[in-house]
Amino acid sequence: MAPILSIVGRRNSGKTTLMEKLIPELKSRGYRVGTLKHDVHGFDMDREGKDTWRHAQAGAEAVGILSPKKCAIIKGLRQPMSLNRMVREHFSGVDIVLTEGFKGEDKPKIEVFRSEVCDSLLCKPEELFALVSDAPHDVPVPTFALDDVVGLADLIIATHLSEPASTAPFYEGDGMTLKINGKAVSLTPFVQQFMIGALAGMVGVLRDVETPETLQIEISKPT
Amino acid sequence: MAPILSIVGRRNSGKTTLMEKLIPELKSRGYRVGTLKHDVHGFDMDREGKDTWRHAQAGAEAVGILSPKKCAIIKGLRQPMSLNRMVREHFSGVDIVLTEGFKGEDKPKIEVFRSEVCDSLLCKPEELFALVSDAPHDVPVPTFALDDVVGLADLIIATHLSEPASTAPFYEGDGMTLKINGKAVSLTPFVQQFMIGALAGMVGVLRDVETPETLQIEISKPT
Repeated sequence: MAPILSIVGRRNSGKTTLMEKLIPELKSRGYRVGTLKHDVHGFDMDREGKDTWRHAQAGAEAVGILSPKKCAIIKGLRQPMSLNRMVREHFSGVDIVLTEGFKGEDKPKIEVFRSEVCDSLLCKPEELFALVSDAPHDVPVPTFALDDVVGLADLIIATHLSEPASTAPFYEGDGMTLKINGKAVSLTPFVQQFMIGALAGMVGVLRDVETPETLQIEISKPT
Repeated sequence: MAPILSIVGRRNSGKTTLMEKLIPELKSRGYRVGTLKHDVHGFDMDREGKDTWRHAQAGAEAVGILSPKKCAIIKGLRQPMSLNRMVREHFSGVDIVLTEGFKGEDKPKIEVFRSEVCDSLLCKPEELFALVSDAPHDVPVPTFALDDVVGLADLIIATHLSEPASTAPFYEGDGMTLKINGKAVSLTPFVQQFMIGALAGMVGVLRDVETPETLQIEISKPT
Protein backbone atom coordinates (compact mmCIF):
# COMPACT_ATOMS: atom_id res chain seq x y z
CA MET A 1 0.00 0.00 0.00
CA ALA A 2 1.24 3.50 -0.78
CA PRO A 3 2.33 5.60 2.22
CA ILE A 4 -0.25 8.12 3.38
CA LEU A 5 0.49 11.63 4.64
CA SER A 6 -2.19 14.02 5.82
CA ILE A 7 -2.23 17.76 5.18
CA VAL A 8 -4.28 19.26 7.99
CA GLY A 9 -4.98 22.71 9.32
CA ARG A 10 -7.69 25.09 10.36
CA ARG A 11 -10.31 26.33 7.93
CA ASN A 12 -8.81 28.48 5.15
CA SER A 13 -5.29 27.83 6.39
CA GLY A 14 -4.23 26.94 2.84
CA LYS A 15 -4.38 23.14 2.75
CA THR A 16 -5.52 22.93 -0.87
CA THR A 17 -2.98 25.57 -1.91
CA LEU A 18 -0.19 23.54 -0.33
CA MET A 19 -1.47 20.41 -2.07
CA GLU A 20 -1.40 22.32 -5.36
CA LYS A 21 2.30 23.08 -4.86
CA LEU A 22 3.35 19.75 -3.37
CA ILE A 23 1.75 17.53 -6.01
CA PRO A 24 3.73 18.93 -8.99
CA GLU A 25 6.92 19.03 -6.92
CA LEU A 26 6.67 15.31 -6.08
CA LYS A 27 5.57 14.56 -9.63
CA SER A 28 8.62 16.38 -11.05
CA ARG A 29 10.79 14.02 -9.00
CA GLY A 30 9.19 11.01 -10.68
CA TYR A 31 6.58 9.99 -8.12
CA ARG A 32 2.95 9.24 -8.92
CA VAL A 33 0.78 11.10 -6.47
CA GLY A 34 -2.75 10.26 -5.34
CA THR A 35 -4.84 12.63 -3.25
CA LEU A 36 -7.81 12.06 -0.99
CA LYS A 37 -10.07 14.72 0.40
CA HIS A 38 -11.94 14.17 3.63
CA ASP A 39 -15.51 15.38 3.45
CA VAL A 40 -17.60 15.10 6.57
CA HIS A 41 -20.84 16.36 5.08
CA GLY A 42 -21.14 14.40 1.87
CA PHE A 43 -20.47 15.66 -1.63
CA ASP A 44 -21.84 15.82 -5.14
CA MET A 45 -19.30 14.55 -7.59
CA ASP A 46 -21.47 13.74 -10.57
CA ARG A 47 -23.51 16.07 -12.76
CA GLU A 48 -27.28 15.98 -12.90
CA GLY A 49 -28.67 14.35 -16.00
CA LYS A 50 -25.54 12.41 -16.96
CA ASP A 51 -25.99 8.68 -17.50
CA THR A 52 -23.95 7.83 -14.42
CA TRP A 53 -26.04 10.26 -12.37
CA ARG A 54 -29.19 8.54 -13.66
CA HIS A 55 -27.79 5.13 -12.65
CA ALA A 56 -27.19 6.38 -9.12
CA GLN A 57 -30.65 7.95 -8.94
CA ALA A 58 -32.10 4.59 -9.96
CA GLY A 59 -30.46 2.98 -6.96
CA ALA A 60 -27.06 1.70 -8.06
CA GLU A 61 -24.77 1.42 -5.04
CA ALA A 62 -21.63 1.85 -7.12
CA VAL A 63 -21.51 3.85 -10.31
CA GLY A 64 -18.45 3.91 -12.53
CA ILE A 65 -17.30 5.26 -15.85
CA LEU A 66 -14.37 3.99 -17.86
CA SER A 67 -12.69 5.70 -20.79
CA PRO A 68 -9.33 4.84 -22.36
CA LYS A 69 -7.44 7.42 -20.32
CA LYS A 70 -9.47 7.78 -17.15
CA CYS A 71 -11.82 5.95 -14.84
CA ALA A 72 -14.08 7.11 -12.07
CA ILE A 73 -16.25 5.48 -9.49
CA ILE A 74 -18.73 6.73 -6.92
CA LYS A 75 -19.77 4.25 -4.25
CA GLY A 76 -22.32 4.32 -1.49
CA LEU A 77 -21.00 3.03 1.84
CA ARG A 78 -23.14 0.99 4.21
CA GLN A 79 -20.67 1.81 6.94
CA PRO A 80 -17.87 4.36 7.11
CA MET A 81 -14.73 3.22 5.31
CA SER A 82 -11.34 3.53 6.95
CA LEU A 83 -8.66 5.62 5.30
CA ASN A 84 -6.46 2.53 5.01
CA ARG A 85 -9.14 0.54 3.26
CA MET A 86 -9.96 3.36 0.87
CA VAL A 87 -6.31 3.62 -0.14
CA ARG A 88 -5.84 -0.13 -0.31
CA GLU A 89 -8.89 -0.66 -2.49
CA HIS A 90 -8.79 2.33 -4.78
CA PHE A 91 -5.27 3.77 -4.99
CA SER A 92 -3.28 1.02 -6.64
CA GLY A 93 -0.59 2.38 -8.94
CA VAL A 94 0.42 5.52 -7.04
CA ASP A 95 3.58 5.96 -4.97
CA ILE A 96 2.13 8.17 -2.27
CA VAL A 97 -1.29 9.38 -1.14
CA LEU A 98 -1.62 12.91 0.25
CA THR A 99 -4.83 13.48 2.14
CA GLU A 100 -6.49 16.80 2.71
CA GLY A 101 -8.01 16.52 6.14
CA PHE A 102 -8.32 13.26 8.14
CA LYS A 103 -7.07 14.90 11.32
CA GLY A 104 -8.56 12.01 13.30
CA GLU A 105 -6.63 9.23 11.58
CA ASP A 106 -3.24 8.03 12.79
CA LYS A 107 -1.26 9.10 9.71
CA PRO A 108 1.77 11.43 9.76
CA LYS A 109 0.42 14.98 9.70
CA ILE A 110 1.69 18.10 8.03
CA GLU A 111 -0.10 21.11 9.49
CA VAL A 112 -0.51 24.33 7.52
CA PHE A 113 -0.57 27.50 9.66
CA ARG A 114 -1.19 31.05 8.46
CA SER A 115 -1.17 33.78 11.09
CA GLU A 116 -3.85 35.68 9.21
CA VAL A 117 -6.49 33.00 9.86
CA CYS A 118 -5.05 30.81 12.62
CA ASP A 119 -4.72 31.60 16.33
CA SER A 120 -3.12 28.39 17.40
CA LEU A 121 -2.02 25.04 16.01
CA LEU A 122 -4.72 22.46 15.33
CA CYS A 123 -2.51 19.47 16.15
CA LYS A 124 -0.73 18.62 19.34
CA PRO A 125 3.05 18.75 18.85
CA GLU A 126 3.33 14.98 19.22
CA GLU A 127 0.86 14.42 16.37
CA LEU A 128 2.93 16.42 13.89
CA PHE A 129 5.26 15.10 11.24
CA ALA A 130 6.07 18.57 9.90
CA LEU A 131 4.77 22.12 10.05
CA VAL A 132 4.30 24.59 7.21
CA SER A 133 3.89 28.03 8.72
CA ASP A 134 4.48 31.76 8.34
CA ALA A 135 5.20 32.10 12.05
CA PRO A 136 7.58 30.32 14.43
CA HIS A 137 6.22 27.63 16.74
CA ASP A 138 7.88 25.66 19.46
CA VAL A 139 7.39 22.20 17.97
CA PRO A 140 9.84 19.32 17.78
CA VAL A 141 9.40 18.74 14.04
CA PRO A 142 10.84 20.29 10.86
CA THR A 143 9.13 23.58 10.02
CA PHE A 144 8.95 25.03 6.51
CA ALA A 145 7.97 28.43 5.13
CA LEU A 146 4.67 28.48 3.23
CA ASP A 147 6.49 28.48 -0.10
CA ASP A 148 9.26 26.01 0.78
CA VAL A 149 7.65 23.11 -0.96
CA VAL A 150 11.05 21.88 -2.15
CA GLY A 151 12.23 21.41 1.43
CA LEU A 152 8.99 19.69 2.37
CA ALA A 153 9.21 17.36 -0.63
CA ASP A 154 12.82 16.51 0.30
CA LEU A 155 11.68 15.49 3.77
CA ILE A 156 8.74 13.43 2.49
CA ILE A 157 10.92 11.59 -0.01
CA ALA A 158 13.67 10.92 2.51
CA THR A 159 11.28 9.58 5.12
CA HIS A 160 8.54 7.90 3.09
CA LEU A 161 9.62 7.27 -0.45
CA SER A 162 13.12 5.88 -0.29
CA GLU A 163 13.26 2.22 -1.24
CA PRO A 164 12.87 0.14 1.92
CA ALA A 165 15.87 -2.21 1.92
CA SER A 166 15.01 -4.96 4.33
CA THR A 167 11.29 -5.18 4.86
CA ALA A 168 10.58 -8.28 2.74
CA PRO A 169 9.25 -10.72 5.33
CA PHE A 170 10.24 -13.99 3.70
CA TYR A 171 13.21 -14.94 1.61
CA GLU A 172 13.00 -16.39 -1.83
CA GLY A 173 13.20 -20.15 -1.68
CA ASP A 174 11.40 -20.42 1.65
CA GLY A 175 9.75 -23.69 2.39
CA MET A 176 5.98 -23.77 2.16
CA THR A 177 3.57 -26.62 2.78
CA LEU A 178 -0.08 -26.61 1.84
CA LYS A 179 -2.52 -29.22 3.04
CA ILE A 180 -6.07 -29.52 1.76
CA ASN A 181 -8.29 -31.74 3.88
CA GLY A 182 -5.18 -32.95 5.64
CA LYS A 183 -3.37 -34.09 2.49
CA ALA A 184 -0.21 -32.34 1.32
CA VAL A 185 -0.54 -30.67 -2.08
CA SER A 186 2.50 -30.58 -4.32
CA LEU A 187 3.28 -27.08 -5.61
CA THR A 188 5.73 -25.87 -8.22
CA PRO A 189 8.33 -23.33 -7.02
CA PHE A 190 6.51 -20.67 -9.05
CA VAL A 191 3.17 -21.30 -7.34
CA GLN A 192 4.90 -21.45 -3.97
CA GLN A 193 6.56 -18.08 -4.55
CA PHE A 194 3.31 -16.64 -5.84
CA MET A 195 1.38 -17.70 -2.74
CA ILE A 196 4.17 -16.67 -0.36
CA GLY A 197 4.32 -13.26 -2.01
CA ALA A 198 0.55 -12.83 -1.81
CA LEU A 199 0.41 -13.83 1.85
CA ALA A 200 3.41 -11.66 2.72
CA GLY A 201 1.60 -8.77 1.07
CA MET A 202 -1.61 -9.40 2.99
CA VAL A 203 0.17 -9.79 6.30
CA GLY A 204 2.29 -6.72 5.58
CA VAL A 205 -0.68 -4.38 5.83
CA LEU A 206 -1.89 -5.72 9.17
CA ARG A 207 -1.23 -3.43 12.08
CA ASP A 208 0.86 -4.40 15.09
CA VAL A 209 2.35 -7.51 13.50
CA GLU A 210 6.07 -8.12 13.67
CA THR A 211 8.08 -9.04 10.57
CA PRO A 212 7.10 -12.64 9.89
CA GLU A 213 9.68 -15.38 9.98
CA THR A 214 7.07 -18.11 10.11
CA LEU A 215 3.40 -18.05 9.16
CA GLN A 216 0.70 -20.60 9.77
CA ILE A 217 -2.87 -20.46 8.55
CA GLU A 218 -5.66 -22.89 9.21
CA ILE A 219 -9.13 -22.61 7.76
CA SER A 220 -11.96 -25.04 8.25
CA LYS A 221 -15.67 -25.27 7.70
CA PRO A 222 -17.71 -24.94 10.85
CA THR A 223 -18.54 -28.35 12.22
CA MET B 1 -15.75 -10.86 -8.63
CA ALA B 2 -19.32 -9.85 -9.31
CA PRO B 3 -20.84 -11.11 -12.58
CA ILE B 4 -20.89 -8.54 -15.37
CA LEU B 5 -23.69 -8.07 -17.90
CA SER B 6 -23.59 -5.50 -20.66
CA ILE B 7 -26.54 -3.45 -21.88
CA VAL B 8 -25.73 -2.54 -25.46
CA GLY B 9 -27.59 -1.03 -28.38
CA ARG B 10 -27.49 1.63 -31.03
CA ARG B 11 -27.41 5.29 -30.16
CA ASN B 12 -30.63 6.46 -28.44
CA SER B 13 -31.99 2.93 -28.34
CA GLY B 14 -32.80 3.37 -24.66
CA LYS B 15 -29.87 1.79 -22.84
CA THR B 16 -29.90 4.22 -19.93
CA THR B 17 -33.69 4.01 -19.68
CA LEU B 18 -33.49 0.22 -19.41
CA MET B 19 -30.76 0.56 -16.77
CA GLU B 20 -33.03 2.92 -14.83
CA LYS B 21 -35.74 0.24 -14.73
CA LEU B 22 -33.51 -2.78 -14.20
CA ILE B 23 -31.49 -1.36 -11.29
CA PRO B 24 -34.46 -0.83 -8.93
CA GLU B 25 -35.99 -4.15 -9.98
CA LEU B 26 -32.83 -6.06 -9.01
CA LYS B 27 -32.46 -3.92 -5.92
CA SER B 28 -36.02 -4.72 -4.81
CA ARG B 29 -35.05 -8.39 -4.93
CA GLY B 30 -32.23 -7.78 -2.49
CA TYR B 31 -29.24 -7.49 -4.80
CA ARG B 32 -26.67 -4.71 -4.65
CA VAL B 33 -26.15 -3.36 -8.14
CA GLY B 34 -23.10 -1.61 -9.54
CA THR B 35 -23.11 0.09 -12.93
CA LEU B 36 -20.34 1.02 -15.30
CA LYS B 37 -20.65 3.31 -18.27
CA HIS B 38 -18.31 2.99 -21.22
CA ASP B 39 -17.13 6.32 -22.48
CA VAL B 40 -14.89 6.33 -25.52
CA HIS B 41 -14.22 10.04 -25.64
CA GLY B 42 -13.34 10.87 -22.05
CA PHE B 43 -15.53 12.56 -19.49
CA ASP B 44 -15.64 15.30 -16.91
CA MET B 45 -16.85 13.94 -13.62
CA ASP B 46 -15.61 16.59 -11.22
CA ARG B 47 -16.64 20.24 -10.94
CA GLU B 48 -14.30 23.09 -11.69
CA GLY B 49 -12.97 24.84 -8.62
CA LYS B 50 -13.65 22.03 -6.14
CA ASP B 51 -10.69 20.90 -4.05
CA THR B 52 -10.56 17.52 -5.79
CA TRP B 53 -10.62 19.26 -9.17
CA ARG B 54 -7.72 21.46 -8.03
CA HIS B 55 -5.74 18.35 -6.96
CA ALA B 56 -6.22 16.83 -10.40
CA GLN B 57 -5.25 20.08 -12.12
CA ALA B 58 -2.06 20.11 -10.04
CA GLY B 59 -1.12 16.72 -11.46
CA ALA B 60 -2.49 14.08 -9.09
CA GLU B 61 -2.95 10.81 -10.98
CA ALA B 62 -5.68 9.61 -8.65
CA VAL B 63 -8.05 11.93 -6.83
CA GLY B 64 -10.48 10.67 -4.24
CA ILE B 65 -13.01 11.94 -1.76
CA LEU B 66 -14.31 10.08 1.25
CA SER B 67 -17.32 10.94 3.36
CA PRO B 68 -19.10 8.74 5.91
CA LYS B 69 -21.71 7.56 3.40
CA LYS B 70 -19.99 7.80 0.06
CA CYS B 71 -16.61 7.65 -1.62
CA ALA B 72 -15.45 8.63 -5.07
CA ILE B 73 -12.28 8.31 -7.03
CA ILE B 74 -11.10 9.57 -10.39
CA LYS B 75 -7.95 7.99 -11.77
CA GLY B 76 -5.79 8.67 -14.78
CA LEU B 77 -4.83 5.55 -16.70
CA ARG B 78 -1.42 5.12 -18.28
CA GLN B 79 -2.88 2.37 -20.42
CA PRO B 80 -6.47 1.35 -21.06
CA MET B 81 -7.94 -0.71 -18.23
CA SER B 82 -9.85 -3.89 -18.95
CA LEU B 83 -13.44 -4.21 -17.86
CA ASN B 84 -12.52 -7.16 -15.65
CA ARG B 85 -9.81 -5.24 -13.87
CA MET B 86 -12.02 -2.22 -13.35
CA VAL B 87 -14.68 -4.39 -11.72
CA ARG B 88 -12.16 -6.40 -9.69
CA GLU B 89 -10.43 -3.31 -8.34
CA HIS B 90 -13.30 -0.94 -7.77
CA PHE B 91 -16.59 -2.85 -7.41
CA SER B 92 -16.13 -4.84 -4.24
CA GLY B 93 -19.35 -5.19 -2.28
CA VAL B 94 -21.86 -5.39 -5.13
CA ASP B 95 -23.62 -8.54 -6.33
CA ILE B 96 -23.74 -7.69 -10.03
CA VAL B 97 -22.31 -5.07 -12.36
CA LEU B 98 -24.44 -3.85 -15.27
CA THR B 99 -22.46 -2.04 -17.91
CA GLU B 100 -23.82 0.48 -20.35
CA GLY B 101 -21.85 -0.10 -23.52
CA PHE B 102 -18.72 -2.28 -23.76
CA LYS B 103 -19.95 -3.96 -26.92
CA GLY B 104 -16.36 -5.05 -27.63
CA GLU B 105 -15.86 -6.98 -24.39
CA ASP B 106 -16.72 -10.65 -24.05
CA LYS B 107 -19.48 -10.26 -21.46
CA PRO B 108 -23.07 -11.51 -21.86
CA LYS B 109 -24.94 -8.84 -23.80
CA ILE B 110 -28.48 -7.58 -23.52
CA GLU B 111 -29.31 -5.53 -26.61
CA VAL B 112 -31.97 -2.83 -26.55
CA PHE B 113 -33.80 -2.32 -29.84
CA ARG B 114 -36.38 0.35 -30.61
CA SER B 115 -37.82 0.36 -34.15
CA GLU B 116 -38.06 4.13 -34.10
CA VAL B 117 -34.29 4.59 -34.01
CA CYS B 118 -32.84 1.20 -34.99
CA ASP B 119 -32.73 -0.39 -38.44
CA SER B 120 -31.02 -3.60 -37.47
CA LEU B 121 -29.51 -5.30 -34.44
CA LEU B 122 -26.09 -4.13 -33.31
CA CYS B 123 -24.98 -7.56 -32.07
CA LYS B 124 -24.64 -10.78 -33.98
CA PRO B 125 -27.15 -13.34 -32.70
CA GLU B 126 -24.37 -15.46 -31.19
CA GLU B 127 -23.15 -12.53 -29.08
CA LEU B 128 -26.52 -12.02 -27.42
CA PHE B 129 -27.60 -13.16 -24.00
CA ALA B 130 -31.03 -11.55 -24.28
CA LEU B 131 -32.90 -9.02 -26.39
CA VAL B 132 -35.17 -6.21 -25.24
CA SER B 133 -37.15 -5.02 -28.23
CA ASP B 134 -40.39 -3.56 -29.50
CA ALA B 135 -40.18 -5.69 -32.67
CA PRO B 136 -39.71 -9.41 -33.28
CA HIS B 137 -36.28 -10.68 -34.30
CA ASP B 138 -35.13 -14.11 -35.31
CA VAL B 139 -32.61 -14.64 -32.53
CA PRO B 140 -31.95 -17.74 -30.42
CA VAL B 141 -32.18 -15.92 -27.08
CA PRO B 142 -34.98 -14.83 -24.75
CA THR B 143 -36.66 -11.64 -26.00
CA PHE B 144 -38.50 -9.20 -23.74
CA ALA B 145 -40.78 -6.25 -24.38
CA LEU B 146 -39.30 -2.85 -23.57
CA ASP B 147 -41.22 -2.67 -20.31
CA ASP B 148 -40.81 -6.31 -19.24
CA VAL B 149 -38.07 -5.59 -16.78
CA VAL B 150 -39.49 -8.18 -14.38
CA GLY B 151 -38.97 -10.96 -16.91
CA LEU B 152 -35.48 -9.74 -17.69
CA ALA B 153 -34.57 -9.57 -14.00
CA ASP B 154 -35.92 -13.12 -13.53
CA LEU B 155 -33.62 -14.34 -16.28
CA ILE B 156 -30.58 -12.48 -14.93
CA ILE B 157 -31.14 -13.79 -11.42
CA ALA B 158 -31.69 -17.36 -12.59
CA THR B 159 -28.59 -17.39 -14.75
CA HIS B 160 -26.16 -15.15 -12.88
CA LEU B 161 -27.27 -14.58 -9.33
CA SER B 162 -28.49 -17.85 -7.94
CA GLU B 163 -26.29 -18.98 -5.09
CA PRO B 164 -23.95 -21.62 -6.42
CA ALA B 165 -24.56 -24.46 -3.98
CA SER B 166 -21.35 -26.40 -4.05
CA THR B 167 -18.58 -24.34 -5.60
CA ALA B 168 -17.71 -22.08 -2.69
CA PRO B 169 -14.93 -23.90 -0.89
CA PHE B 170 -15.50 -22.27 2.47
CA TYR B 171 -18.55 -20.78 4.06
CA GLU B 172 -18.84 -17.24 5.32
CA GLY B 173 -17.99 -17.13 8.98
CA ASP B 174 -15.45 -19.92 8.73
CA GLY B 175 -12.87 -20.05 11.41
CA MET B 176 -9.43 -18.91 10.41
CA THR B 177 -6.36 -18.68 12.55
CA LEU B 178 -3.18 -16.93 11.57
CA LYS B 179 0.01 -17.28 13.55
CA ILE B 180 3.08 -15.18 12.90
CA ASN B 181 6.22 -16.49 14.59
CA GLY B 182 4.01 -18.80 16.59
CA LYS B 183 1.81 -16.04 18.00
CA ALA B 184 -1.87 -15.81 17.04
CA VAL B 185 -2.77 -12.59 15.20
CA SER B 186 -6.20 -11.10 15.76
CA LEU B 187 -8.03 -10.35 12.51
CA THR B 188 -11.23 -8.44 11.80
CA PRO B 189 -13.98 -10.40 10.04
CA PHE B 190 -13.31 -8.33 6.92
CA VAL B 191 -9.63 -9.26 6.81
CA GLN B 192 -10.46 -12.89 7.57
CA GLN B 193 -12.93 -13.05 4.71
CA PHE B 194 -10.48 -11.25 2.46
CA MET B 195 -7.72 -13.74 3.16
CA ILE B 196 -10.03 -16.76 2.99
CA GLY B 197 -11.33 -15.53 -0.35
CA ALA B 198 -7.83 -14.95 -1.68
CA LEU B 199 -6.61 -18.38 -0.60
CA ALA B 200 -9.74 -20.09 -1.89
CA GLY B 201 -9.13 -18.37 -5.21
CA MET B 202 -5.48 -19.44 -5.36
CA VAL B 203 -6.24 -23.02 -4.39
CA GLY B 204 -9.14 -23.11 -6.82
CA VAL B 205 -6.85 -22.89 -9.84
CA LEU B 206 -4.55 -25.71 -8.71
CA ARG B 207 -5.01 -28.93 -10.65
CA ASP B 208 -6.05 -32.21 -9.10
CA VAL B 209 -7.09 -30.71 -5.78
CA GLU B 210 -10.42 -31.63 -4.24
CA THR B 211 -12.83 -28.97 -2.96
CA PRO B 212 -11.25 -27.74 0.25
CA GLU B 213 -12.98 -28.17 3.56
CA THR B 214 -9.85 -27.44 5.53
CA LEU B 215 -6.65 -25.68 4.52
CA GLN B 216 -3.35 -25.42 6.34
CA ILE B 217 -0.33 -23.41 5.26
CA GLU B 218 3.03 -23.18 6.92
CA ILE B 219 5.86 -20.98 5.74
CA SER B 220 9.21 -20.60 7.42
CA LYS B 221 12.60 -19.16 6.68
CA PRO B 222 15.23 -21.78 5.89
CA THR B 223 17.17 -22.67 9.00
